[in-house]
Amino acid sequence: MFRSHNCGELRIKDLDTQVTLCGWVHHIRDLGKLLFIDLRDRYGTTQIYFDSNNKPQLYQIAKNLGREYVIQIEGIVRERSNKNPKMPTGDIEIDVDRLTVLNKSKIPPFTIEDDTDGGEELRMQYRYLDLRRNVMKETMIFRHELNLSIRNFLSEKSFLEIETPFLIKSTPEGARDFIVPSRLNPGNFYALPQSPQLLKQLLMFAGMDRYFQIVRCFRDEDFRADRQPEFTQLDCEMSFVEREDILDLFEDMMRYLFNKLLNIDLPTFPRLTYQKAMETYGSDKPDLRFDMPIIDITDKLKGHGFKFFDDSEYIGGLLLINKPSVSRKYIDKLTEWVKSPQIGSTGMAYIRYLDGELKASISRFFSNEDLQKIMNSLKAGNNDILFIISGNKEKSLNILGNLRLKLANDYQLIQKNTFKPLWVIEFPMFEWDDENQRYTASHHPFTSPLNEDIELLDTNPAIARSNAYDMVINGVEVGGGSIRIHDKNLQKKIFKLLNLTNQEAEDKFGFFLKALDFGAPPHGGIAFGIDRILTVMLGLNSIRDVIAFPKNNMGRDLMMQAPAPISEEQLKELHIKII
Amino acid sequence: MFRSHNCGELRIKDLDTQVTLCGWVHHIRDLGKLLFIDLRDRYGTTQIYFDSNNKPQLYQIAKNLGREYVIQIEGIVRERSNKNPKMPTGDIEIDVDRLTVLNKSKIPPFTIEDDTDGGEELRMQYRYLDLRRNVMKETMIFRHELNLSIRNFLSEKSFLEIETPFLIKSTPEGARDFIVPSRLNPGNFYALPQSPQLLKQLLMFAGMDRYFQIVRCFRDEDFRADRQPEFTQLDCEMSFVEREDILDLFEDMMRYLFNKLLNIDLPTFPRLTYQKAMETYGSDKPDLRFDMPIIDITDKLKGHGFKFFDDSEYIGGLLLINKPSVSRKYIDKLTEWVKSPQIGSTGMAYIRYLDGELKASISRFFSNEDLQKIMNSLKAGNNDILFIISGNKEKSLNILGNLRLKLANDYQLIQKNTFKPLWVIEFPMFEWDDENQRYTASHHPFTSPLNEDIELLDTNPAIARSNAYDMVINGVEVGGGSIRIHDKNLQKKIFKLLNLTNQEAEDKFGFFLKALDFGAPPHGGIAFGIDRILTVMLGLNSIRDVIAFPKNNMGRDLMMQAPAPISEEQLKELHIKII
Repeated sequence: MFRSHNCGELRIKDLDTQVTLCGWVHHIRDLGKLLFIDLRDRYGTTQIYFDSNNKPQLYQIAKNLGREYVIQIEGIVRERSNKNPKMPTGDIEIDVDRLTVLNKSKIPPFTIEDDTDGGEELRMQYRYLDLRRNVMKETMIFRHELNLSIRNFLSEKSFLEIETPFLIKSTPEGARDFIVPSRLNPGNFYALPQSPQLLKQLLMFAGMDRYFQIVRCFRDEDFRADRQPEFTQLDCEMSFVEREDILDLFEDMMRYLFNKLLNIDLPTFPRLTYQKAMETYGSDKPDLRFDMPIIDITDKLKGHGFKFFDDSEYIGGLLLINKPSVSRKYIDKLTEWVKSPQIGSTGMAYIRYLDGELKASISRFFSNEDLQKIMNSLKAGNNDILFIISGNKEKSLNILGNLRLKLANDYQLIQKNTFKPLWVIEFPMFEWDDENQRYTASHHPFTSPLNEDIELLDTNPAIARSNAYDMVINGVEVGGGSIRIHDKNLQKKIFKLLNLTNQEAEDKFGFFLKALDFGAPPHGGIAFGIDRILTVMLGLNSIRDVIAFPKNNMGRDLMMQAPAPISEEQLKELHIKII
Repeated sequence: MFRSHNCGELRIKDLDTQVTLCGWVHHIRDLGKLLFIDLRDRYGTTQIYFDSNNKPQLYQIAKNLGREYVIQIEGIVRERSNKNPKMPTGDIEIDVDRLTVLNKSKIPPFTIEDDTDGGEELRMQYRYLDLRRNVMKETMIFRHELNLSIRNFLSEKSFLEIETPFLIKSTPEGARDFIVPSRLNPGNFYALPQSPQLLKQLLMFAGMDRYFQIVRCFRDEDFRADRQPEFTQLDCEMSFVEREDILDLFEDMMRYLFNKLLNIDLPTFPRLTYQKAMETYGSDKPDLRFDMPIIDITDKLKGHGFKFFDDSEYIGGLLLINKPSVSRKYIDKLTEWVKSPQIGSTGMAYIRYLDGELKASISRFFSNEDLQKIMNSLKAGNNDILFIISGNKEKSLNILGNLRLKLANDYQLIQKNTFKPLWVIEFPMFEWDDENQRYTASHHPFTSPLNEDIELLDTNPAIARSNAYDMVINGVEVGGGSIRIHDKNLQKKIFKLLNLTNQEAEDKFGFFLKALDFGAPPHGGIAFGIDRILTVMLGLNSIRDVIAFPKNNMGRDLMMQAPAPISEEQLKELHIKII
């Protein structure tokens, strides 16, 4: 028995108790006669002290302790004269009688504080020290509680967590697979799952009815900011359901989680079609924490003789309300920004009321009266400014979506600590891949079209809508899913539309097509990004902050130094060679 | 809404209710005027019927249904005239008004019954059909409940489930790693974890105090019966603990699980030292469901002039009680068996009382009186038979251990449905690897020696005992762990004893040795094989029967046909080539 109590539990009721505590030396304050230490473990911090008058020898030993030493102390719980109401243990302190150094510590390369002086690279290199910081520890506890709450919620709803294999067959579609050479089957390779999509569908064929799994998934993508080659997914599938069954159940789940873990009651999730989301917010994952919808002003601005507008398929605007501080300089910068390659606009116009006066970048082409009419029709008031983007409709909406977020950021339109969830539904079935001149699946090739759009597969697949849906919170797509195809002929038709030959479909998905022959039930599902849910719930910026041992943007684990070279012997056994 | 009820929930109280059910056609019985179908889903089976008098058209459609068709029916709940008390829904049946075929099915290649006619290969190929069998479904549900119960039990005890990475650094020690080429770091490789051993220790360094994870682990071993390249582990670690803290807690956990899931109260787990286990049962995972300990009869049998015995280091016996049916032929076969290469004995002797008469294979060298004395000292009675193995002690004990299990099997000494758990403690620290002329770690290189044996590391490491422990139930090692080393110098000494040069230790475990510099707490842990726990609890023979999608003994997934070749393009991107 190393300890009688942890460092977070002693209270005034424990006065005069003899206790044994273990923990890390967090702070040392040597007042000459008294030496105070904040002793820290996972459960909290307890002040302990060494009295040089009563125990001069012990005091001398304590003087040699350093930050992050691991110690065990025995002592008596005393009432503090200087109580600290911010600490749960702040009413008491320990008068130490015995001290054992369990392990020494070198001086940590950064401070073990919420606001640490350690840069991210250093923190990842010494992740075991980084995780000692309270904020990281609390995140790990929150993650544990989230996962456990999900498991208990879904189990209550008759879901079974079923473990699917990690060493599966490579069926790259979309992202690249990580692959694993098989030593015992030379020239053959396993793949790590990008998701257990086909396996969970097979579990539905197997009659499991309701499946979930909190499971690691792998995508060998070109690394970019805030992507991880491995990430955790809450993967779910249900049989004999329609879209509404799934949306209702998982909306309930999310409401339960927010209530239980954050004490926040989420509102009913509005449902937006993809089309409506794009037209209103220029995004299929709109951030509803602020208003400022995109306004279609095509009809209002066309036909005034301004060729640039007249030639545009679409003209859209964003009305920034009551911001007299918007300067000419800011507008110029913003115009440059929308014209940058990553945004890709050809330009931007504006109309504004500033201090009661109408100003517009397009005043050469429009009469003051016309401009006023436009502004009035939008109910624009003094110090409001209308930013205008025109051109191809899809592209313009995209630009307006980006512009909307930028304006919200620049003018702090986003309320902190609010959560605005919604469902986006009725996604397009396909996206056209210009480079390879073929359709790709917007969701994945196993997604069912909307019943009413099945005929469009033959006549005009480009406008066919799928029975897919995303859950979006605060502009983050936290989950997505679809009703799946359970009809073999429809599945084959989709493969064909995706340009897979019969042979390719057979090679990649033969086992799955075969399974569709033996009584596959109607089914659908959804998958959530656990890392993303956590960043949204905790208001964090990076998924690296919710993962115990994350990789950097190059896919490297800086602590272990992985990936790394392996021995020639290992390579030879695997029947491979580096080229 | 596909269904109003599932196929397991309707009762007599639901009479005359209009219901909609979905499920698979399990059995069809066409009685000419009435056609009965057992409709099956995960929750049970409900009898439905089609009446040719009242609904001739519907009856005609129903006649075309086949086994495993997926259908939806609407109808009225009626009381059965022929009640089936074995079925929870056996009091009622459904008079069908509407029938929709949701999907057809080809005739399954084997019957969907507990005693199926499908061989294991076929069952694995069509695993989605195999899982429809009730026994497999119940196993999946049990597995779900086991995992959830473990999670809730440990969470109640302040353990945090923390997810550790799957793409880590290769540090082969013991088994081979599966490796994963890194596309973005050419010539570099990740490894899949054999267990999160170092990561969980680092979580202790990080102050997480109590960690667990139900996690997939990977070992690239030469395949043999009942091994899987990927398996599920319950991985646990605790800080500031001694062995007894760990044994107590996890004994409680196992008792909780057996009680909750099987309604069985396990006894207190006896604790056997490794030495005692070997000397008494010839095994470090003894099966205590039957008695028959090994009896050291060295002193009794030596010195009678039988050179073979006199030259033996050790003579041990097993007393098979009251088995008059043991024939000469059986004894001859048994002797052949102990002499087979996999058992490796040089021979076997016996002494028995058969129908009141003393018989012995060694009667040439021993007087009847001596033999009787020996038998009497063992309290052997009529029809008892003593099997005797002699030679090198360690080897003889091993042979006796195997012989003990064989006799138990051959004479059905093992009580069914009993569970005999125990702890085996104080394992040797090292094993001598004759081939490579070096010590290997019996447990793993991070295991602490017993405090009292630390000095032996310098003087006689071969007899040093470790602070490792195994949990054994019914002869299966379901879990094992140890108190770990938290002192850097001790860790380095162990690496040295394992013949790692400083450079090798640094290359492989540098990040870990570095972490030991920053205040590593005393800690220890344990890991359980979930698949093994399940086979023991459910009394199954193979872990393949508790895994949703297992691989065969060659590591192949027969359903997906993995591993498989991958494209030249994929190989090229990964900077590798097949040789």
